[in-house]
Amino acid sequence: MRDDAALFAPVAGQELVLTCDAIVCGVHFLPDDPPDTVARKALRVNLSDLAAKGAHPAGCLMTLALPEHTTETWLESFAGGLHSDCELFSCPLLGGDTVRTEGPLWVSVFALGSLPQGSMVRREGAEPGDRVLLTGTVGDAVLGLQTLREPYRVAGWSLSEDEASHLLGRYRVPQPRVAMADVVRDCASAAMDVSDGLVGDLTKLCDVSKVSARLELSRIPLSPAAARAAAAQADAMEKLLTGGDDYEILATVAPERMQAFRDGAERAGIAIADIGEIVAGLDAPQVIGEDRRALSFARRSFSHF
Amino acid sequence: MRDDAALFAPVAGQELVLTCDAIVCGVHFLPDDPPDTVARKALRVNLSDLAAKGAHPAGCLMTLALPEHTTETWLESFAGGLHSDCELFSCPLLGGDTVRTEGPLWVSVFALGSLPQGSMVRREGAEPGDRVLLTGTVGDAVLGLQTLREPYRVAGWSLSEDEASHLLGRYRVPQPRVAMADVVRDCASAAMDVSDGLVGDLTKLCDVSKVSARLELSRIPLSPAAARAAAAQADAMEKLLTGGDDYEILATVAPERMQAFRDGAERAGIAIADIGEIVAGLDAPQVIGEDRRALSFARRSFSHF
Repeated sequence: MRDDAALFAPVAGQELVLTCDAIVCGVHFLPDDPPDTVARKALRVNLSDLAAKGAHPAGCLMTLALPEHTTETWLESFAGGLHSDCELFSCPLLGGDTVRTEGPLWVSVFALGSLPQGSMVRREGAEPGDRVLLTGTVGDAVLGLQTLREPYRVAGWSLSEDEASHLLGRYRVPQPRVAMADVVRDCASAAMDVSDGLVGDLTKLCDVSKVSARLELSRIPLSPAAARAAAAQADAMEKLLTGGDDYEILATVAPERMQAFRDGAERAGIAIADIGEIVAGLDAPQVIGEDRRALSFARRSFSHF
Repeated sequence: MRDDAALFAPVAGQELVLTCDAIVCGVHFLPDDPPDTVARKALRVNLSDLAAKGAHPAGCLMTLALPEHTTETWLESFAGGLHSDCELFSCPLLGGDTVRTEGPLWVSVFALGSLPQGSMVRREGAEPGDRVLLTGTVGDAVLGLQTLREPYRVAGWSLSEDEASHLLGRYRVPQPRVAMADVVRDCASAAMDVSDGLVGDLTKLCDVSKVSARLELSRIPLSPAAARAAAAQADAMEKLLTGGDDYEILATVAPERMQAFRDGAERAGIAIADIGEIVAGLDAPQVIGEDRRALSFARRSFSHF
């Protein structure tokens, strides 16, 4: 680095959205994960936060903590993944720091996004009657992790090679919905990214918005691979709805903005699903099963503690 | 945290200076350090970078990685230290993230500073004839660490209790020269913070500025405690000039700006020393001893690798 710090010139009329998320080896990625995917995941989990707030990436800084035995090969692959994703998402690396650690490798990213003044979408703002929208699918990443950790169980799911690789890819390299930022900003009453499990994250959004929600289990989108895995495991739906690492956008949208939201998502080329509605009340959100009864969950979201 | 990300509204006409520095247990602080000092060090090493660029603190984000056994008491003390320093330096905590680690505890801070457009002071810009200025004293922190790591050697230094506690305090709680930001911006041709040792950091500044420097050993300021410790150890000066963790500002100032720099530092209540001059050439900077010969150093700065 040629200086102690980076200079950033904000654009007049724009505000900044700031986020930081770190990933730690053994917790958010595994020691054998390809190094380029580690870099990409570290960046992408942050870009997902920005997109859910309606912001476009403006730049990032990264601190990388390396154990002693880290090889040049590892570092080159890591740097390659970082560089290509910074380009792909127009999110220049503005600065960084490398430190030594005696523990597992970790990567801490700070990302800046920009959006027009006063337009950030918050967790607060959902109103009874709003629809609950979700990009992409949920549960793939938690299943992808399972394919690595419990291969003996996964053998019973009869996944094709493509399906197994889809799940693993979703764990290692999240797809931040950066292209949805404008649509979220224009149409959503509230939004957040789903990183700790759909049910738990919706609960957080409802808490802050002082509302509740009813989701329809049959409307919650699963990939073909996840659907097949779910069919083979008794407790699968709970895992898919409360596991972490989805990095999809959960948005609430008033009925009159629904068409604009759908049109915008179509232009962005991102699949969305209408999975339920915001209702009045302060109860925890419910997921209604096909028998019309509410599912119960042992725990509502992924937690480190 | 009530949202995924923080909103930051830049002030018109101001630019932002962004920096990130992390501290890792066992490398930058020790397991028995009081938790409030860990938080304060994590923040202050970043504020030191901002001040050396001429920027005032505008806010920060923090990622904290906790091993499983972290106690509530530890966390409360940490949070107390962080809170009081954020207040002291007018640097609000805008957001953060907590993760689990199986390794040592670490803290990664991202700090934003602001300054008038076009006024950031860089490492580049030093010119032959400029004086080399240094705030405070160097070498205290590296000696403070030594009091913890090699108490048997330190016993021979005949330090008073106050002196020992001064050195330890300088290791645990750096004093970022935030009050010097305006002076640096108004008067310095180049500047950086001294975090990896005076000689090595001056070398970096000279490299980028394409100049060299001559420092006078007798002008380099030491605290009374460091002077006493130095007198008792044969290799002390090398350690004081190349050890890390000083967090002082190194600035180069054209002769015609010297009086303004001195006046500004006096108003800020911060001691400065004129330790040498920038000279033409691309050789490594020299430190001239009392025998008028250049000192030689086995290694010029602290490095993690």
